[in-house]
Amino acid sequence: MLGVQNNLFWVVPSSAVIALIFALIFFKQMMKNSEGTERMAEIAAHVRKGAMAYLKQQYKVVIIVFIILTILFAVMAYGFDVQNRWVPFAFLTGGFFSGLAGFFGMKTATYASSRTANAARNSLNSGLRVAFRSGAVMGLVVVGLALFDISLWYVVLNLLIKNGDPARKMEIITTTMLTFGMGASTQALFARVGGGIYTKAADVGADLVGKVEAGIPEDDPRNPATIADNVGDNVGDVAGMGADLYESYAGSILATAALGTAAFMNNPKMQASAVFLPMIIGAVGTLLSIAGIFAVRTREDISQKKLLGALSRGTNLSSVLIMVLAFIVLRVLKIENYAGIWLSIIVGLVTGWAIGKETEYFTSAAYKPTQGIASKAETGAATVIISGIGTGMLSTTFPVLTIVIGTTLAYLAAAGWHFSNMSMGLYGIGIAAVGMLSTLGITLATDAYGPIADNAGGNAEMSNLGEEVRKRTDALDSLGNTTAATGKGFAIGSAALTALALLASYVEELRIGLLRLGQTTIEAGNQLVQTTAASLTDFMVHYDVTLMNPKVLMGMFIGAMMAFMFCGLTMTAVGRAAGNMVDEVRRQFREIKGILEGEAVPDYARCVEISTRGAQHEMLLPSLLAIIAPITIGLIFGVPGVMGLLTGVLSSGFILAVFMANSGGAWDNAKKYIESGVLGGKGSEAHKAAVVGDTVGDPFKDTSGPSLNILIKLMAMVSIVMAGLTVSWTLL
Amino acid sequence: MLGVQNNLFWVVPSSAVIALIFALIFFKQMMKNSEGTERMAEIAAHVRKGAMAYLKQQYKVVIIVFIILTILFAVMAYGFDVQNRWVPFAFLTGGFFSGLAGFFGMKTATYASSRTANAARNSLNSGLRVAFRSGAVMGLVVVGLALFDISLWYVVLNLLIKNGDPARKMEIITTTMLTFGMGASTQALFARVGGGIYTKAADVGADLVGKVEAGIPEDDPRNPATIADNVGDNVGDVAGMGADLYESYAGSILATAALGTAAFMNNPKMQASAVFLPMIIGAVGTLLSIAGIFAVRTREDISQKKLLGALSRGTNLSSVLIMVLAFIVLRVLKIENYAGIWLSIIVGLVTGWAIGKETEYFTSAAYKPTQGIASKAETGAATVIISGIGTGMLSTTFPVLTIVIGTTLAYLAAAGWHFSNMSMGLYGIGIAAVGMLSTLGITLATDAYGPIADNAGGNAEMSNLGEEVRKRTDALDSLGNTTAATGKGFAIGSAALTALALLASYVEELRIGLLRLGQTTIEAGNQLVQTTAASLTDFMVHYDVTLMNPKVLMGMFIGAMMAFMFCGLTMTAVGRAAGNMVDEVRRQFREIKGILEGEAVPDYARCVEISTRGAQHEMLLPSLLAIIAPITIGLIFGVPGVMGLLTGVLSSGFILAVFMANSGGAWDNAKKYIESGVLGGKGSEAHKAAVVGDTVGDPFKDTSGPSLNILIKLMAMVSIVMAGLTVSWTLL
Repeated sequence: MLGVQNNLFWVVPSSAVIALIFALIFFKQMMKNSEGTERMAEIAAHVRKGAMAYLKQQYKVVIIVFIILTILFAVMAYGFDVQNRWVPFAFLTGGFFSGLAGFFGMKTATYASSRTANAARNSLNSGLRVAFRSGAVMGLVVVGLALFDISLWYVVLNLLIKNGDPARKMEIITTTMLTFGMGASTQALFARVGGGIYTKAADVGADLVGKVEAGIPEDDPRNPATIADNVGDNVGDVAGMGADLYESYAGSILATAALGTAAFMNNPKMQASAVFLPMIIGAVGTLLSIAGIFAVRTREDISQKKLLGALSRGTNLSSVLIMVLAFIVLRVLKIENYAGIWLSIIVGLVTGWAIGKETEYFTSAAYKPTQGIASKAETGAATVIISGIGTGMLSTTFPVLTIVIGTTLAYLAAAGWHFSNMSMGLYGIGIAAVGMLSTLGITLATDAYGPIADNAGGNAEMSNLGEEVRKRTDALDSLGNTTAATGKGFAIGSAALTALALLASYVEELRIGLLRLGQTTIEAGNQLVQTTAASLTDFMVHYDVTLMNPKVLMGMFIGAMMAFMFCGLTMTAVGRAAGNMVDEVRRQFREIKGILEGEAVPDYARCVEISTRGAQHEMLLPSLLAIIAPITIGLIFGVPGVMGLLTGVLSSGFILAVFMANSGGAWDNAKKYIESGVLGGKGSEAHKAAVVGDTVGDPFKDTSGPSLNILIKLMAMVSIVMAGLTVSWTLL
Repeated sequence: MLGVQNNLFWVVPSSAVIALIFALIFFKQMMKNSEGTERMAEIAAHVRKGAMAYLKQQYKVVIIVFIILTILFAVMAYGFDVQNRWVPFAFLTGGFFSGLAGFFGMKTATYASSRTANAARNSLNSGLRVAFRSGAVMGLVVVGLALFDISLWYVVLNLLIKNGDPARKMEIITTTMLTFGMGASTQALFARVGGGIYTKAADVGADLVGKVEAGIPEDDPRNPATIADNVGDNVGDVAGMGADLYESYAGSILATAALGTAAFMNNPKMQASAVFLPMIIGAVGTLLSIAGIFAVRTREDISQKKLLGALSRGTNLSSVLIMVLAFIVLRVLKIENYAGIWLSIIVGLVTGWAIGKETEYFTSAAYKPTQGIASKAETGAATVIISGIGTGMLSTTFPVLTIVIGTTLAYLAAAGWHFSNMSMGLYGIGIAAVGMLSTLGITLATDAYGPIADNAGGNAEMSNLGEEVRKRTDALDSLGNTTAATGKGFAIGSAALTALALLASYVEELRIGLLRLGQTTIEAGNQLVQTTAASLTDFMVHYDVTLMNPKVLMGMFIGAMMAFMFCGLTMTAVGRAAGNMVDEVRRQFREIKGILEGEAVPDYARCVEISTRGAQHEMLLPSLLAIIAPITIGLIFGVPGVMGLLTGVLSSGFILAVFMANSGGAWDNAKKYIESGVLGGKGSEAHKAAVVGDTVGDPFKDTSGPSLNILIKLMAMVSIVMAGLTVSWTLL
């Protein structure tokens, strides 16, 4: 390890530890608040118990999957030598830390909801503070654990891997670390899919019988599914989202590090700087996130609009400061074309911000698209659905153009005009993703705040805290919806950029695979090139990964289909699980006398159990397909097939994810817009039609849509880890 | 021109003329039937007048677009010499003949509906015969005109193009002829989009006010939108589908001819055979279709199931015979690897058949998926929609795998194991598409029969012909739904294969473009290759059309997005146009006293006008975007961008088309399933929920879904025609 980079590197584990310490402080601060009345504590305990029971069950299933995959990797590594021997261990820690982040985040959220509700009894502002600081625990745990795991493996691999050539050594280190990303992806997919199915089965089931049939309000304690619904917000929106962003965050840093080794293959010093850069940007961003969290100070007597301003101030502060500090880091590391790379980072930040704004425009009731969908409610549910789907599909135009423009600019800034230096350009795309996610600590805090406020509202409703408190928690919740739009933009945008970076890292993994097989040269267009020196294009030519190769095209078809099939599986899973929930709620209304009169207590635990079992049962098939497909395609169609598969699932999946998230968000807010009093308000025919839209949107925006982000990344990760197998054995 | 091929070639124009003669005979036979009562004739006249008024208006708009594009092509050809000078004329005839096919088809259909209804007064069987023979007019006009235009241009270009090298000459002829495909695509897109918006605006509008609000049955003469609804079936399902398949048919033959020149570049004699083969297969298939049409004979007293058997017998006979005759044609033409190519043709036929069966499985109420959707109606509209979308997305798995397996087999059969001869393999894919479409004459007949039967039912209802006749027309209609499933499979499957073939032809067009610019060599992997002898892979390497090139990836993103944006535009267009229709129908119910009591006649013409204006207004933007996008991407990102764009729109668009068609079809049949008496039957809450699904499905299956097929092909055609411009000028 070399000079200044070496010293700078220690910023990474240090900031990881600092982030974790602050997370602990915020957690303890939150715990000092009172849980409120006995009833409030009791309900919070119900939800916490349900959530933890779910997580326990989920981790049981996931552990089995991890054991099987680890054995598979061990066999490949030790038995057939088509893989690095560190892969099984890196894979395991990725999964472990991701699971840990989800566990801490959810533990915090389930303790925070009653405390937020209780604080809201005093004032809106104290409610906000408890909820936001609790969200910050999640944000800091995610980035802290990710940076910690990254530093740990970097140090360990540096000590253990013996290879004289520093460039080769760095290449083996960075590509091995990518497998820890696969562990995180696998964990994240299960968390997102399982959590997504759980939350929407409970939500749809609770609404269909409670709101529509029995005519009782949301979160009414008479509804047997209401605890399950509140548990769902935690397992889906907190644990699921935490695992998702943990994975994006780690994935973007690791992929960019791998691209850094490729971009500076012949300059070990520059190479080390390029590898450290994404880690250090992440570390600096984490410190700035903590500063930003402290900047969210509010006086006691401010309006809701100013509350939003306070939140934005924190995020904006971190984003502006990271631009300045990134420049200084680049100067210190003395990276080639530092100005260009700095531009790439800024492009990443702006792209994330722009996608957030676009999401807000298409899903907020303050703008035309959602109002248009709401107005269709006057002609019934069918026109609400047609209009929501149409608008959602149309809305994909802008994020796609933003990503295309952002990616092109990030590429050109790093590579120079005319796409001449491809490795540098791809490094630019990776570093843009890192830039976008650099302030994840605070963005995730504002994001995780939403479900906490939502649950606080549920707690207030079930504890009969009265109109005033419920109004305050509703205000907090609606604030959360606005920040959630930005958060979703981040999740989707960063997934697209990270996936592009992963695609490029795949080629690096091919190189390692070939060298492991002792293949020192590859043939690229009738020319022999040293495997160690081959460019990305040389690899493309060698494997004929061109758009005329039918294997590539077949891979693309299957990849695009995978995105749709995956959505189909998760949508129908929600339908089935919600159906079981409906049956159970109806049964309880029928068999337990006095529930609707408030004289008997419903069997909440049974509903929690049904959702848990449904989610566990239904999450396996789609998740396993995501792992099996790249392996199978690799075995049949080889490298061209795999790259076709990845680009197919990336392009279709990204757009499908935006469509589903935006349609779902717009329906949700169109319903709320009508509830605010327009078009007849609550209880009108238009409202009923809008509720149908909202219900359809639930699995769109909270199950299928967000899971797609991880599907894309997991498939890329699996391909990367399996590259050794693909180069050694292929049918066609 | 050479020996036996030369003589065989004349089979093509001859069978075109024979097909047109039989179309005329069937038309005259149909016209001899009585129109029935005065009321029936009057209603038929209303519908015919509305349909013709629509077509006139549509052609007016399309002519303007054609004039502008022709001027553009002329400027490019004569002013800047980046294009062949025959392009503007070929483009025009393609559009003209496609329009003519639509015109004849619709004229026949609108004359046939009252005659079918009248024949159904005698027996089910006579109704079938009139409807089927009228459908046959459409089928034969489409294939006849396509083969006629192809032969005409082949002869004309052969006489006019002066080039000593026969291989070069054949290349210029076949690539020029592709532009006639672009004319057909442009016409088809407007027909599908305009017709699709028209028919669903009228249908949704009529249903929302008539069935849902006023509670009157479908096709009730008291509904002001009912004539517009019947007009819509003609302009959407007859004229739109005719133009669509005309375009697939011509496109697949022309693309395969272009691939034939590429596959046998150094063997002029074999090359001529390879160019003629798709034309001759088409010609032989046409003659067999006529034979098949005559084979559809039924006795007077048979059951509905046997009627279906009679229809299938005709189609099956043609399909089996074409397998035998294709082998003989291949032997006579003495094409290299004739056994392999024969296998490709069979693979194409089987693929088309399999996709049809899969479509039937996922959309027919006889099978589990649709029954499952219907059962969700018991928990309301939201679960019907969730389940329909989920099932539709899942259903894409099978057609995609079928296309992937079919394409791979067709490729391998023609190219040999291990994908060694790429040009031959792609020729195999093209010829598989030709094989699939070879018996289009009769498949289209069974397909066009559906809307005729549907309209006959409308006529019977409006003419108060009584329960018995309506039951018979319903039986005919439901028979049409089954054949329509197969037809849709054909349309989608052939579009995918044709688009793959067009993608390959694009490279041929690049070659012509480079030669026109005087570029005699291209650089492929540091090697100079003669442009005339460069392989497809050489071109890919030269232009760096690999999956690591960000221009390719950006093109893919935009291509995939185009499919969603296009659907979004057409979905919201239907929503808007249907909204106007709803307002108008409500206005008439309110202002014209006595409509609902049957004492006053509604203003049908006003509704027809509203649908016509809405469709014309709304079709322009999506259609023009399809033309502008490939040109713009070509100018910015060059050849890699265009190829990324085409593969992106192909993979996403194909799957989106299957999803939308299947969801829509399944909702339609789930509703009919409930109407058949299960789950409470007509009028129950479940039925109301299913009606919402059906209404949402209308634009899915009849507007957005089918238009996507043409979008894909049109974008490929535009790229092909603009290849000259793309190679001479690009920004990045």
